[in-house]
Amino acid sequence: MPQPDPISACLIIIGNEILSGRTQDANLAIIGGKCDALGIRLTEARVIADTETAIIDTVNTCRAQFTYVFTTGGIGPTHDDITAAAVARAFDVELLRNEAARKALDRYYEPKRLTEARLKMADIPAGARLIDNPVSGAPGFQLQNVFVLPGVPAIMEAMFAGLTDRLVGGDPIITDNVTTNLPESEIAADLSALQAHYPDISMGSYPYFRKGKLGVNLVLRGTDAARMKAAAAALMTAILRLGGEALHGSPT
Amino acid sequence: MPQPDPISACLIIIGNEILSGRTQDANLAIIGGKCDALGIRLTEARVIADTETAIIDTVNTCRAQFTYVFTTGGIGPTHDDITAAAVARAFDVELLRNEAARKALDRYYEPKRLTEARLKMADIPAGARLIDNPVSGAPGFQLQNVFVLPGVPAIMEAMFAGLTDRLVGGDPIITDNVTTNLPESEIAADLSALQAHYPDISMGSYPYFRKGKLGVNLVLRGTDAARMKAAAAALMTAILRLGGEALHGSPT
Repeated sequence: MPQPDPISACLIIIGNEILSGRTQDANLAIIGGKCDALGIRLTEARVIADTETAIIDTVNTCRAQFTYVFTTGGIGPTHDDITAAAVARAFDVELLRNEAARKALDRYYEPKRLTEARLKMADIPAGARLIDNPVSGAPGFQLQNVFVLPGVPAIMEAMFAGLTDRLVGGDPIITDNVTTNLPESEIAADLSALQAHYPDISMGSYPYFRKGKLGVNLVLRGTDAARMKAAAAALMTAILRLGGEALHGSPT
Repeated sequence: MPQPDPISACLIIIGNEILSGRTQDANLAIIGGKCDALGIRLTEARVIADTETAIIDTVNTCRAQFTYVFTTGGIGPTHDDITAAAVARAFDVELLRNEAARKALDRYYEPKRLTEARLKMADIPAGARLIDNPVSGAPGFQLQNVFVLPGVPAIMEAMFAGLTDRLVGGDPIITDNVTTNLPESEIAADLSALQAHYPDISMGSYPYFRKGKLGVNLVLRGTDAARMKAAAAALMTAILRLGGEALHGSPT
């Protein structure tokens, strides 16, 4: 097994609608991909309710434990959007009407449509650095290693793009796939031996059932392109030797 | 806000493929629905990597904090299926070849297909109570308040059905929806007042963009059917008074 990377991240997904499964989260996959490219290991995600206690406790636990913490959700205009206030309490700082955030809302909304409910989106913890929102005005913010982002995936993604110069990562993480028609249990021993031979590459085995066919998707993750290539080739060889079909690439 | 219910649950989703977003989790929604029906509040979900440290730490933190803990994933036959071993270590008990689990595998597999890799699925922490798998043989298990289930949603769901007599809940949680074409910020004040009037009902506001139309899905959750009905009616009235369209039911 590779040693844990010192540059880690945790995503905190805030919102009852995600927790109940009514809304399917899409931010984990987006942020996971961005972290890979930046060489940051997203090692945990937590889905929590939009209650003050849950947000305060989770933010404080995670910011002590991970290099970076991202939160999504709960920064809109309604009563259940309490992320900014709760993060202020987590850091024990005041929540203040932020002038730059107010101006960003001014630029986005027509004057008489900037209601009090919308102005609430300019209330930002003292000392926070804003994260620009190029899509819909209302900014996110950064307090130390915590980055507070909205829940709507397209907006979140556009805002994340403006963050990359604030995040220091390592070598980009590369993913590769080998697919086979052999059952998981028949490749288990070889896969185990290969994992031991390539401790710097994380190997995952995921059975799937698609288009009427059973198969296994073997996923390799690492940072060294040459080692990744050698590991994928070794895996292909092992599968062929066992009499299976081996396909380099994803099963979709 | 309603007082936190003493009967709570946390779902621990184990697996790098979920954490990377490559595979979309479906178990949160299934277990959330089951918990609602049983009157158990699923108040948190954690997605963690399939590493021993992550599983041990998360299981031990969560089993102390929640009434029930469910885990999904990592109980298959390959080297990255380490949930049973890690849970045994979390409880500081031995991992043993379980005779009843072995018999369950015997019934499912033809004799010569019960390979050593598959037999690994009969290794269960000492003292655990098995959870029958009516679909594919390999059982899950329960240790105190921790329920270890597989990651494949259809199998997980079939196994969960056999658990209901082991779970003690409260009044079933009911969900209702009101949809409107008004922007979230225009209903914010009324919604806030209504939430204050119905502290026993959790009200969530979720903007959506579907079939070319913007709107807001207002979700009510509570346990008292009469109160839920009254709250939904009050919400409809408030929206109509603001000049919006109000639809009782989900926007899909």
